[in-house]
Amino acid sequence: MAKNMLIGQSGGPTAAINASLAGAVQAAMQADGIAEIYGSFNGLEGVLRRHIIDLRAALKTPEDFELLKATPAMALGSCRLRLAAQPDEKYRKILETFRAYGIGCFFYIGGNDSMDSVRKLHDYFRAAGEDIRVVGIPKTIDNDLPCTDHTPGFPSAAKFVATSVAEIACDSFVYDRPSVTIAEIMGRNAGWLTAASVLSREAAFGAPHLIYLPESDFDPERFLADVRRLLGEVRNVIVAVAEGIRLRDGRYVSEASQSGVADAFGHKDLAGAGKWLERLVRREIGCKVRSVELNVLQRSAAHLCSDVDIREAQGVGAAAVRLALAGHSGVMATISRSASEPYAVSYGHVPVGLVANQVRNVPREWITPEGGDVTGEMLAYLRPLVQGENPFFFLHGVPRLFRFARNYVHPGRKAALSQ
Amino acid sequence: MAKNMLIGQSGGPTAAINASLAGAVQAAMQADGIAEIYGSFNGLEGVLRRHIIDLRAALKTPEDFELLKATPAMALGSCRLRLAAQPDEKYRKILETFRAYGIGCFFYIGGNDSMDSVRKLHDYFRAAGEDIRVVGIPKTIDNDLPCTDHTPGFPSAAKFVATSVAEIACDSFVYDRPSVTIAEIMGRNAGWLTAASVLSREAAFGAPHLIYLPESDFDPERFLADVRRLLGEVRNVIVAVAEGIRLRDGRYVSEASQSGVADAFGHKDLAGAGKWLERLVRREIGCKVRSVELNVLQRSAAHLCSDVDIREAQGVGAAAVRLALAGHSGVMATISRSASEPYAVSYGHVPVGLVANQVRNVPREWITPEGGDVTGEMLAYLRPLVQGENPFFFLHGVPRLFRFARNYVHPGRKAALSQ
Repeated sequence: MAKNMLIGQSGGPTAAINASLAGAVQAAMQADGIAEIYGSFNGLEGVLRRHIIDLRAALKTPEDFELLKATPAMALGSCRLRLAAQPDEKYRKILETFRAYGIGCFFYIGGNDSMDSVRKLHDYFRAAGEDIRVVGIPKTIDNDLPCTDHTPGFPSAAKFVATSVAEIACDSFVYDRPSVTIAEIMGRNAGWLTAASVLSREAAFGAPHLIYLPESDFDPERFLADVRRLLGEVRNVIVAVAEGIRLRDGRYVSEASQSGVADAFGHKDLAGAGKWLERLVRREIGCKVRSVELNVLQRSAAHLCSDVDIREAQGVGAAAVRLALAGHSGVMATISRSASEPYAVSYGHVPVGLVANQVRNVPREWITPEGGDVTGEMLAYLRPLVQGENPFFFLHGVPRLFRFARNYVHPGRKAALSQ
Repeated sequence: MAKNMLIGQSGGPTAAINASLAGAVQAAMQADGIAEIYGSFNGLEGVLRRHIIDLRAALKTPEDFELLKATPAMALGSCRLRLAAQPDEKYRKILETFRAYGIGCFFYIGGNDSMDSVRKLHDYFRAAGEDIRVVGIPKTIDNDLPCTDHTPGFPSAAKFVATSVAEIACDSFVYDRPSVTIAEIMGRNAGWLTAASVLSREAAFGAPHLIYLPESDFDPERFLADVRRLLGEVRNVIVAVAEGIRLRDGRYVSEASQSGVADAFGHKDLAGAGKWLERLVRREIGCKVRSVELNVLQRSAAHLCSDVDIREAQGVGAAAVRLALAGHSGVMATISRSASEPYAVSYGHVPVGLVANQVRNVPREWITPEGGDVTGEMLAYLRPLVQGENPFFFLHGVPRLFRFARNYVHPGRKAALSQ
């Protein structure tokens, strides 16, 4: 008997998460084993509130899928809901919804928090004797999930970071006096995205000249010495720094920057790592210096996505559907790289317990011993991921984006169809 | 007798300023009246230091020109040099350089400060009895030069702002709780670029919902009332605000934000307009709120240029060369719009004195009477400017950019050729 499926999105936005939704829905539409295809708004919150839509009706034409793939952030909305360690009222309400809609497969696209929900629901359904298969689909620009070569969303963010740093470098090269430009890149604990700035080096004639990741202690004295040396060598020094760099004592640099004094509204000064380095350079070296925070476009710039990323995001979504149909549950679909040159991947899976709440950091040996740079291994790892540009759609010069209408489906009306 | 020409770039970066350089050089290469084609590094500073290169040698292939057009910021570097009101040693050194290289035409690509240099040099050369024609080529993302329909560089910045605000809006729509997102856009005195965020409204399902320009007094009470109303109507409110918005008493909002207290490094809190509004919303409304500063990518995102802009930037560069050859001097090339639908422009010129040190603001009647939005006239003005996407070049997934080698030309060697 064909199963009804439900899919939801969770966690922080990426530019590729809708491609995974598209990939899963397309695979489900082609599968004999899937009857109804439902989407839940705002992840598990939508399951609790029964904000459920019929995705067969909402995604009709090939153009719908193409637009969806070119739309950043979660088209179905997101949530930050964490399930309790022990089954409670929320678990029961989720199961009630699943029963009402006849759900046999549940797909959850998200990061390590979301994989925690996948694990808990899988365990709960099994204990309840329900044959509901729960499969996780990875996404995060942080690239910090274990057991997968990389996470969809990261390659597009990496491409945007590399392109932006190259363009910011051009912007910094125009004046003929020594200057330091600091680009602050997302990454509280993992430095993958900051490391990706190394990809701009060929394009940007050597920039960034210094790269600092959270995985390596930040030494202000060494940083100042490196900047002084580079001011003499290249004049316009470009620095890429992760928001989460830490001093040797373990404090985030952004914590060290807190002045303890409050502004007119009573708020503390919460300058980030980039601003802190800017102030350090101004005070200790005194040259022209500015910091630029790469903003939410890092994760939402659908206009500059890696083609490899969007294809893989789709592929891993489709792989998740095949896993569920083959009887798997409590697993996350993964990407395995068999080679970098030529680049080749396949899709696999791991028990989601190996991923939930785990973090994969940049290996220490991919950072230069003295800090301030990454190694050739990192470059070789990153290069294949940013290849190609996913098509982006403009209408009259501005983006065309996709949005779901909020036509919620009442379980009584649809559930009957899947019997 | 054919004249040698010199061209330089000045002021702040744009993504289109190299297209004007390309257009002028291509037109000069095709003109009978031009012998040597020189470029000066860092504008007039390079003239003073004789950092002059041979552009016929530096730009050889059609690919060189295409790459140059797709490279942001000044490939020849920039400067912020202002000439004194009365001719001094710098004027004399500039004339000496021009004589040494046999320069008969000088082109300066820049904003209102640069047009001041064009005017002063024109006057000085005429008083000195020299037939050196000086022609200005407009550029600025601020779009604040009078006498031209718009300035090259602005349309590409507008396209980036509209696209970014749409993508940031998608990023803001994902959570199912009320929120306010404030995008701070460049523009200290002119609100053109912030106004361009209105172009994202169709793409981004109504966002930005509120738009504030420096040309209209900012009323915090009215802003809070509008935000409260919109939180009820659309839940996720997107606000576009110019960095230079002012309170009724004339103070910049960013000045009003100064707390008077200093951080650990002794620096005052210099929060911008976006951060100030963020704090205001947090204190007075208390909902989820964040501010995003659109950074230097606004002016340097060559990867997302308006095709109209790049073609016009080239066109106005070529027009400047024709103006000089026709005997004009002390003028700036301009863009005149004859119609918006279908969009049609021609190139003209004005005495540069009408532009130098002048500012063109957004007309008050293009801002809604109660503030917080722009009118249909503004939308009609903006729409044609962002049409089409200029090709951008990737190699292995990262940008390909152009850079000049610093092969300075000694005047003795080359000047002889043009005799």
